[in-house]
Amino acid sequence: MSNTTVYLDNAATTPLDERVLETMLPLLRAGSGNPSSLHVFGVAASEAVEEARVSVAKFLGASPAEIYFTSGGTESDALAVFGLARANKEKRHIVISSVEHAAVYEAASRLESEGYEVSRVPVDEHGLVDPVEFEAALRPDTALAAVVWANNEVGTVQPIAELSSICAGQGIPFHSDAVQAAGRSSLKVDEVPVSTLALSSHKLYGPQGVGALYVRDGVRVSPLQVGGGQESGLRSGTQNVAGIAGFGAAARLAGEECEERSRHEMELRDLLIEEATDIPGVSLNGHPEKRLSNNAHFSVEGIEAEGIVLLCDAMGYAIGSGSACSSGGHKASRVLLALGQSEREAFSAVRVTIGKGNTRAEIEGFLEVFARVVEQLRKLSPLQST
Amino acid sequence: MSNTTVYLDNAATTPLDERVLETMLPLLRAGSGNPSSLHVFGVAASEAVEEARVSVAKFLGASPAEIYFTSGGTESDALAVFGLARANKEKRHIVISSVEHAAVYEAASRLESEGYEVSRVPVDEHGLVDPVEFEAALRPDTALAAVVWANNEVGTVQPIAELSSICAGQGIPFHSDAVQAAGRSSLKVDEVPVSTLALSSHKLYGPQGVGALYVRDGVRVSPLQVGGGQESGLRSGTQNVAGIAGFGAAARLAGEECEERSRHEMELRDLLIEEATDIPGVSLNGHPEKRLSNNAHFSVEGIEAEGIVLLCDAMGYAIGSGSACSSGGHKASRVLLALGQSEREAFSAVRVTIGKGNTRAEIEGFLEVFARVVEQLRKLSPLQST
Repeated sequence: MSNTTVYLDNAATTPLDERVLETMLPLLRAGSGNPSSLHVFGVAASEAVEEARVSVAKFLGASPAEIYFTSGGTESDALAVFGLARANKEKRHIVISSVEHAAVYEAASRLESEGYEVSRVPVDEHGLVDPVEFEAALRPDTALAAVVWANNEVGTVQPIAELSSICAGQGIPFHSDAVQAAGRSSLKVDEVPVSTLALSSHKLYGPQGVGALYVRDGVRVSPLQVGGGQESGLRSGTQNVAGIAGFGAAARLAGEECEERSRHEMELRDLLIEEATDIPGVSLNGHPEKRLSNNAHFSVEGIEAEGIVLLCDAMGYAIGSGSACSSGGHKASRVLLALGQSEREAFSAVRVTIGKGNTRAEIEGFLEVFARVVEQLRKLSPLQST
Repeated sequence: MSNTTVYLDNAATTPLDERVLETMLPLLRAGSGNPSSLHVFGVAASEAVEEARVSVAKFLGASPAEIYFTSGGTESDALAVFGLARANKEKRHIVISSVEHAAVYEAASRLESEGYEVSRVPVDEHGLVDPVEFEAALRPDTALAAVVWANNEVGTVQPIAELSSICAGQGIPFHSDAVQAAGRSSLKVDEVPVSTLALSSHKLYGPQGVGALYVRDGVRVSPLQVGGGQESGLRSGTQNVAGIAGFGAAARLAGEECEERSRHEMELRDLLIEEATDIPGVSLNGHPEKRLSNNAHFSVEGIEAEGIVLLCDAMGYAIGSGSACSSGGHKASRVLLALGQSEREAFSAVRVTIGKGNTRAEIEGFLEVFARVVEQLRKLSPLQST
């Protein structure tokens, strides 16, 4: 991000990797054909898309035929939840966790309003799903289960291998939103028996507006948008060739650099958590160990998050409040409430998420500013006085 | 398109305008924020999206609040058809034309498989819908009607003002796919009472993977993908900021240059049609006058289209076969069958679509090659001998 402000909101979106842009530019400059066209431009476009499909498949340990390009994480989640439900019409029960991303949570709620029954498995105070409770929620008429790989707010990483294995044993399709986990946790679908998995390019230093749904060979998913029959009929619409090529490059780089990036992020994250929680009234949300390598999520006693974010921004540091994936609306975070926090506590949480480009000096600078901001706002806060 | 091959398949996708790329590059290079974030990067991203919304609204004579960004024409059509149907649940009848784009046609067929009744209004031999027949198909339980503004294969422009007025008079929501018409016909929604209108960026010299749905103020549409509540809740998912900004620039340029582009296209189209139909066995499909300024669509007696496209391609001219918006699959064009052609005739059609960058010399060059290709293939064609 080209600004003197330091960007520490990488869970909301990541800056485009220069190497990814280099992959996209020739396709943008020359203009890319329609991959469905028979002529030379169509063939070149189709080749670019298929090359990206191979890269994303490799990133997941999947086969290219199991990768379907979409417009992003939300579409991938909608395609999975609605698509698995509609492909298993005779079953009318759905199991999700209470800390799903809104794209899954709201999709399940919508099916509920259409007559489905939805079980929302609770989490502990760290945001973890208990596999025993999860298994107990499954029923013979469960059409699908979905648990986010790692939560987008507090960063807690779920036991997806265990949860997906339980479902596989019972023949229940299992979806996981891996948008935040991608490039941080190992997402090998040849080791973890998920049925479907949602990815987003722009959380991986790729372009916005592109994502993918992994669909295990043999799993039936009904399409959301129909028409020209692109993406093997599962997702009609002319493919976004340059965007998909960028996503492919981003996935390839994420695969190659995953360990190095995670190590770097974790080092900065641990420094951040250690020092920030020394500030009076600041505590960590989410799991102390089972958390995303780049995620630090703090409650600041007695202060509203919005003020912290705006003041940090004014002082040169861009951080997130709440999920930052949702638009407007002043509502307490459903995820923090699920962790057992009060509404008031839930309004006092900020999310600081590290990217591969952040430095130790930036984190140290932020820590200084954060301490000052908390002190300043504490003097003014209406929450403090109530 | 950077290739010595001349691109004459602008209905499939258009090359990105350099000025559009200039708008996108700073957003791609710097990386754009998430428009939902509160900090400086989020605010800049949100401003870029809102500026584009104003441009697209102006292009249509709409208000910015009536524009919802999507991932493209197919999603916009799906959002309109499924969304209007689901928002009017008590009504279970749908009216479409028999020459809809697959995105609308297949969406209606899917609703049919879910218990809706679908009336497909026939067209005349030029592909025109008769307003009297259209009106006769409407019923008190019609949830929505949809007619494509201009057909994507044969280019026939429908009497949308008249058709949408009939629906407006009866309080029936009317959708039009204006993907091909945009920038060619005047799409002023303040003059034509459509309820919803689908647009695609990449048919307008903007980037692929972006589109919009116009939804008239007060018209109820149910969302396809839910979650973070972006786009006023009608289309959740982080916006593709650079793509949307590019679409905005493309729409602004299309508005400014519409007349000039159409005049240029029409001049080349008329030359093309006049000369090509002098080749023995070559005839024009679609309406002789009421057609897109850039569309020429020919049947070539006794020759399969695929051979023509491939041989023209080998000789330096990229043209389309069938709709070119659909992927693979060797099926006779539903649209040509609706015009009363036989399966055999329908296999013999090619689409030549002009762009703003094409020159008279390119059309003359193509005409020479086309005549040679037709002659050559006629000597070999298996259709010829049957």
